Amino acid sequence: MAHVTGDGPRPFGDALRVGPGFSLADVDPASTPGFDGKRRNAAELMTETDDELDDLQERLYADGTAGGTRAVLLVVQGMDTAGKGGIMRHVVGSVDPQGVQHTAFKAPSEEERAHDFLWRIHKALPHAGQIGVFDRSHYEDVLIVRVRRLVPEAVWSARYEQINSFEAQVSAGGTEIVKVMLNISPEEQKLRLMSRLDRADKHWKYNPGDTDERKLWDEYMRAYQVALERCSTDVAPWYVVPADRKWYARLAVQQLLLERLRSMDPQWPTATFDVAAEKRRLAAT
Amino acid sequence: MAHVTGDGPRPFGDALRVGPGFSLADVDPASTPGFDGKRRNAAELMTETDDELDDLQERLYADGTAGGTRAVLLVVQGMDTAGKGGIMRHVVGSVDPQGVQHTAFKAPSEEERAHDFLWRIHKALPHAGQIGVFDRSHYEDVLIVRVRRLVPEAVWSARYEQINSFEAQVSAGGTEIVKVMLNISPEEQKLRLMSRLDRADKHWKYNPGDTDERKLWDEYMRAYQVALERCSTDVAPWYVVPADRKWYARLAVQQLLLERLRSMDPQWPTATFDVAAEKRRLAAT
Repeated sequence: MAHVTGDGPRPFGDALRVGPGFSLADVDPASTPGFDGKRRNAAELMTETDDELDDLQERLYADGTAGGTRAVLLVVQGMDTAGKGGIMRHVVGSVDPQGVQHTAFKAPSEEERAHDFLWRIHKALPHAGQIGVFDRSHYEDVLIVRVRRLVPEAVWSARYEQINSFEAQVSAGGTEIVKVMLNISPEEQKLRLMSRLDRADKHWKYNPGDTDERKLWDEYMRAYQVALERCSTDVAPWYVVPADRKWYARLAVQQLLLERLRSMDPQWPTATFDVAAEKRRLAAT
Repeated sequence: MAHVTGDGPRPFGDALRVGPGFSLADVDPASTPGFDGKRRNAAELMTETDDELDDLQERLYADGTAGGTRAVLLVVQGMDTAGKGGIMRHVVGSVDPQGVQHTAFKAPSEEERAHDFLWRIHKALPHAGQIGVFDRSHYEDVLIVRVRRLVPEAVWSARYEQINSFEAQVSAGGTEIVKVMLNISPEEQKLRLMSRLDRADKHWKYNPGDTDERKLWDEYMRAYQVALERCSTDVAPWYVVPADRKWYARLAVQQLLLERLRSMDPQWPTATFDVAAEKRRLAAT
């Protein structure tokens, strides 16, 4: 565990958690809180961590098959190009797909719009034993929806409390919630969008609307600030992960997941059958 | 591509495909068709293949976002301990989770039983651009259902044609179907079950019913033989993968997926916007 700073058992969690007085504007998107190593050290730590993460995930999964009710929900938010896809590929992708429920939320469908905004979220919650991962989430309903004025203020302004109640309920049901905002700078976003335009095999990832949204950057940041401060609760804290360095963001999200699973400490279920008797029965076949 | 035997562009596909006159009883579960290397060479080939598989999968995904209608469906069947979980972990798990829809079919729920047997299958089909992976499938409805006589013969015996029609329809819609049976020997299964009983951290994977099912091994093999010969079609062929050697089975399934994606040859979508104009617009932000 070289290069991890901080005394507590949750160095990344402690360094990145949104608490009282948090100001998004004061976070440096190029910083690496909780970690004083370099890119190479981060890759080493991620590899070192893989086995422990695998073990904890499998224990959680096993617990779910044995009647356990616990699950994890990882919510990932961020501006375009913030690196959500890289988190899915390199962090979530290292976990056994049998234990992961991945959902990417796009603009709501007609059917989804005919329900309240949490309807589709509820349906996508992880089963017991699973790690659910949301690529965008119900927070879009207080982010783009607020910035783009897609519903009246009376509607979106009520959603912060609705989200807190919903998340409290989910948490009470046994699902531990980890919410991550990947925080990039507008300058870094410009570079990333430009590199998509420079490569023919990346054009499909670019949408002219991405450049239009950039003009609303400050409004998005204000909407994030409000969502972060109003919805970072004890049962469902927000973590702001500086994301100008992709390698740091991936390490940080992996470690946040690891720290949470460690604290859950899932145990192998004990056999509900007579092991010796089963061995004899099997041997006789 | 060292160690891959066969002249054709689909060495594993050609070696493993169920064709006329196929007999499951004649397949050696410890053999390694299409491959004359060792375990170490298999691991090398799998690693070599990872990048190409990533590239092809991303092209398929990109094509789906641009209005393409193609998808892949990988169906994995096999007796308990045949290695379905290992395929999910080590083959499917190497693919970007954003491009994979994984579904594990258990005993049907009350709601599922209130519909025809293909209802839940239809709902789980991959979206355009995705690789759908079924851990067990509609074939259980002509395997355990037949062996355990869970429905009358008139019902299950009609299902082979129903499955062929269904798969032809799915294929016509743009989804390429690859069906894999992991073929282990009863001796190897016994060893694998015993090792689950030997380790406290594996007890959760053992079910006393597994030993009961072993007594029906021959009946299961007969049911597989019929399903394989009646439902291996041009649009949805079956491949029987010898699975006593886990390393071979994982390599073979990876290569079957690769060969299929290669033949689909998905292309990067072309930009639907003026690239130069977008560069200027972005530069001005």
